[in-house]
Amino acid sequence: MREGVSFSRRIACEAVGTALLLAAVVGSGIMAERLSGGNTALALLANTLATGGVLFAIIATFGPYSGAHFNPVVTLADAWQGGMPWKAVPGYIIAQIIGALAGVALANMMFGDPLFFASHHVRAGAAQALAEFVATFGLLATIWGCSRRAPQLVAFAVSSYIVGAYWFTSSTSFANPAVTIARSLSDTFAGIRPADAPLFIMAQLVGGLAATALFHWIDPVRKTQTDPIVVPHERIAQRSGAADLV
Amino acid sequence: MREGVSFSRRIACEAVGTALLLAAVVGSGIMAERLSGGNTALALLANTLATGGVLFAIIATFGPYSGAHFNPVVTLADAWQGGMPWKAVPGYIIAQIIGALAGVALANMMFGDPLFFASHHVRAGAAQALAEFVATFGLLATIWGCSRRAPQLVAFAVSSYIVGAYWFTSSTSFANPAVTIARSLSDTFAGIRPADAPLFIMAQLVGGLAATALFHWIDPVRKTQTDPIVVPHERIAQRSGAADLV
Amino acid sequence: MREGVSFSRRIACEAVGTALLLAAVVGSGIMAERLSGGNTALALLANTLATGGVLFAIIATFGPYSGAHFNPVVTLADAWQGGMPWKAVPGYIIAQIIGALAGVALANMMFGDPLFFASHHVRAGAAQALAEFVATFGLLATIWGCSRRAPQLVAFAVSSYIVGAYWFTSSTSFANPAVTIARSLSDTFAGIRPADAPLFIMAQLVGGLAATALFHWIDPVRKTQTDPIVVPHERIAQRSGAADLV
Amino acid sequence: MREGVSFSRRIACEAVGTALLLAAVVGSGIMAERLSGGNTALALLANTLATGGVLFAIIATFGPYSGAHFNPVVTLADAWQGGMPWKAVPGYIIAQIIGALAGVALANMMFGDPLFFASHHVRAGAAQALAEFVATFGLLATIWGCSRRAPQLVAFAVSSYIVGAYWFTSSTSFANPAVTIARSLSDTFAGIRPADAPLFIMAQLVGGLAATALFHWIDPVRKTQTDPIVVPHERIAQRSGAADLV
Repeated sequence: MREGVSFSRRIACEAVGTALLLAAVVGSGIMAERLSGGNTALALLANTLATGGVLFAIIATFGPYSGAHFNPVVTLADAWQGGMPWKAVPGYIIAQIIGALAGVALANMMFGDPLFFASHHVRAGAAQALAEFVATFGLLATIWGCSRRAPQLVAFAVSSYIVGAYWFTSSTSFANPAVTIARSLSDTFAGIRPADAPLFIMAQLVGGLAATALFHWIDPVRKTQTDPIVVPHERIAQRSGAADLV
Repeated sequence: MREGVSFSRRIACEAVGTALLLAAVVGSGIMAERLSGGNTALALLANTLATGGVLFAIIATFGPYSGAHFNPVVTLADAWQGGMPWKAVPGYIIAQIIGALAGVALANMMFGDPLFFASHHVRAGAAQALAEFVATFGLLATIWGCSRRAPQLVAFAVSSYIVGAYWFTSSTSFANPAVTIARSLSDTFAGIRPADAPLFIMAQLVGGLAATALFHWIDPVRKTQTDPIVVPHERIAQRSGAADLV
Repeated sequence: MREGVSFSRRIACEAVGTALLLAAVVGSGIMAERLSGGNTALALLANTLATGGVLFAIIATFGPYSGAHFNPVVTLADAWQGGMPWKAVPGYIIAQIIGALAGVALANMMFGDPLFFASHHVRAGAAQALAEFVATFGLLATIWGCSRRAPQLVAFAVSSYIVGAYWFTSSTSFANPAVTIARSLSDTFAGIRPADAPLFIMAQLVGGLAATALFHWIDPVRKTQTDPIVVPHERIAQRSGAADLV
Repeated sequence: MREGVSFSRRIACEAVGTALLLAAVVGSGIMAERLSGGNTALALLANTLATGGVLFAIIATFGPYSGAHFNPVVTLADAWQGGMPWKAVPGYIIAQIIGALAGVALANMMFGDPLFFASHHVRAGAAQALAEFVATFGLLATIWGCSRRAPQLVAFAVSSYIVGAYWFTSSTSFANPAVTIARSLSDTFAGIRPADAPLFIMAQLVGGLAATALFHWIDPVRKTQTDPIVVPHERIAQRSGAADLV
C-alpha cells in the first residue's frame, strides 16, 4: 500500500508526526499546569488524554506512509528484525529528533515561553530507570504483538497503552529517546533535567530490546523483504491476508 | 455509497451536524463552568470529552451523506483538491454557519441564557494565532492522511485529535471559522470576543492550506471525479479497494 | 446473523442489558458522589465515563441478539420504520422497564441503600424539556445514521454521543423513558423526582420522533422485511453488502 | 490464526500480560493516590483510565496468541464450555497468578515500595460480595456475547466495561481471582486485606458461572474443537465466516 512513497516523503512524515507528538506532550503539560491550580493529578490527567488523543491521530495519519515510528527505539528494533534496511535508520532517527525539537519549540512559543530552555525537573534513580525499562518493554510488546496479528488495532492499542503507562510508571513513561532529548529543553510540566536523560535513554533501549526479543521468540518474523522500508505489521498483514488497515 | 443523496439532503446534514457540534462545544462549556467550582482545568476536561464524544458521533452519523465537513476550511480545501465542485462550496459553508448559529442558540436556551449574547472572552495575540495555525494544520493533516489511506479511522482520528488539541494549543483549538463565528455569540466558557475572531479565522485558513499542500506533495489525489460531491476518502477508498466505512 | 435467536432470548437480552445500563448509571452516580467531596463536576465526569463504558459494552454484547435497544423510544421508532413488527413492541418495552428497575435495585443494594426509594432531585422547566428533546434527537439521529451506513460504528458512536450529551444538555441527557422511570426510584446523584418524569418522557418521544422523521427523509429505509425482528442496521448492511459487525 | 503457537508460548503470553495488567492496576493506584492530594474520586478516575488503557493494549497484543484470559474465571468458564481442554487449565491459572504477583512486585518497586507488603484495605460485607458477583457477571457476559458474534469488538468492549465497572460497583470491580490475590500484597490504593480475598473470589466464581450459563442458553457454543486451545470467539468467528480480528 506504500508504493509511491519516496524516502524523503517518509522522512517528512516522521518529522512532522514527531513534531505534533512533542507539541502535544509539552503543550498540554503547560496548559494543564497553568489551569489546574496546583493539583498535579488533574494536570497529569489532562496531559495523559491529550497525549493519547494526538498519538492516535498521528499513527492513523502517518502510519500508512512511514510506519509512524516517531521513536528511535522502534526504528532500531524494526531494523534489527529485518523490517527496514539499516541504511534507512539514520534518516529516520535524525528526522525524529529534529521533529521532536521543532515540536517542543512550537509548544514553548504557543504558550509564550522561550524557544528552548533547559528543564530543571529531576527524574533520576533506579526506580525511575526500572520504570522506563517497563514502560518501553510494554510499548514495544504492544507494537510487535498488534502489528503481527492485529494490525488494524495498532493505533488504538499504542495510544491506549500510553494513556495507562503515564500513570503506572513512576517516570510517567517517556519510553522514547527522541522525546526524552526534546523534553529536556522545556522547563515546564513535562520537562526532564538534561543530566537525567542518558539513564532514561539507556533503560528505554534495554526495555525495547527485551520486548523485541520476547516477540521474536513468541512469533518469529520472516526476514525476506519485498519492500525496502516496510514495517512488520504490513508484512504480516500481507502474509495472513488481513487488510493493511494501519 | 452516496447515490441517492441529493444536494439538499447533504446540506441538511451539514447544518444539523454543525448545530449538534456547537451545541456540544458551547453547552458542555456552560455546564462544566457551572459545576466545576472555579477549577478551570476540570471544566476544560469536561468540555474536551464532551466535544470529542459528539464529534465522533456526528462524523460517523453524517459522514456517509455529506462528508461530515462541518468546517469551511475543510470544504475549501476539499474543493481546491478536486474533491468537490466549487459551485457546491457556498451551499456547504452557508449551511455550516447557519447550523453553528443554531447550535449556539440551542445551547444558550437549554441553559436559560439569551439566544445570542456577544462574548467578552479575550483570545488574542501572536501566540494564539500561532496556536490556531498549528491546531488547524494538525486537523487537516489528520483528515487528509486518514481519508487517503485509513478512511475507516477518520471519525476516531479526528475526534481524538481534537481532544488533544484542546489542551496542547494555547487557544484551545477552535480550528474552524464557522465555530469561531458562532462561539463569539455566547458570553460563556467557550466564547471568543467578536473582535478576536478575524485573526483566528485567518490563522485557521493558513494552517489548513499548509496541511493540504503538504499532503498534496506526500500523496497526490487524482483530479478525476465520478461523483459531483465526493470527499477524498471515498475516492481513495474506491481506488484502493478498501471499504468506504466512514 | 440472528437466526436461532428466539423472541424469549431477545427479550432476556433487552432485560439484562438494560439492568446493566441502569446499574451503571445509578451505581456510578452513587460512587462518584461519595468520593468526590462535593465537587459536582468531578462526580459527573466519573458518572459520564462509567455510563459510556458500560453502554459500549452492552451494545457490543447484546446488539447481535436483540438489537440492543434498551430504550422504548428506539423500539417505537424502529417499529414505526418497519424495522420490527408492532406485536413485538410490548415485550421489548416491558423487558426494558423491568430490567431498568432491577438495575436500579442492584445499584442501590450494592451501595447499601434501600431497594427503591423515591428521588427528590428536581429536574423541571422548559429549558430541561428542551434539553431532553435535543438529547433524544441527537441519540436517535446517531442511531439511524450509523445503522444505515456505518453499522460497524454504532456502539462507538452511541456511547460517544452519550458521553457528550451528559454534559451539553442541562438535563444531563436521560433520553430514555425506561431510564427515566427507573431513576425516579433512587434518591441519589442520578435520580429524578417522580413528578418530573412525565415531561421528560414526553420530550424524549418528540425528540426521537423528529430525528426518525429527519432520517426517513434523508435516507428512506425499505419496508420489506425478511426477518420478524431485525434492526435497521442489519437490513441496511445486507442491502449494501457491508458486514453486520454490530 | 494461532497455528505455530506452542503451549509454552501461550503460557508466557498469559504471564506477561497479567503482569502488565497488575503493574497497571497497582502502579497507577500508587501514582494516583500520591498526586491527587486526598481527592479519592480523582485518584480512582486516573486508576480507572490507566487500567482501561492497558487492558485494551494487552488484549489486542496477546489475544491472538493465548486468548488473553488473564483471569482464572475466564479460563475455567472457557474450559467448561469446551473452548479449551481441561488439561490446559492448570498451566493457564498458574501463569496468571505468577504473572499477577510479578506485576505487583514491579509496581511496588517502580514506586520505591517493598516487593510485597500485605494490604490493610478492608473490603468486606454482603454489599461488596454482591458487587463482585455483578462485576464478574457483567465481565463474562461481555466476553461471551462479543466473542460469539462481535469478536472484533472484544478488546474495546472488555476495557470499556471495566472502566465502567470500577465506578458502578461498590467493590471497584476486582472481577478476577488472580488480581484479587495479587492486590492483597500491596498496601496501597488498589490493595485488599488478605482476609477479605476469599469472599471476593467466591463471588467472582459464582458471577462468572451465572453469565456463562446465561450465554450458554442464549447462544449455545458447539463442543467440537479443531484446535486444542482455542477461545470461543475464534471458533465462532470461523463458523460465521467473520474475520478473527482479535
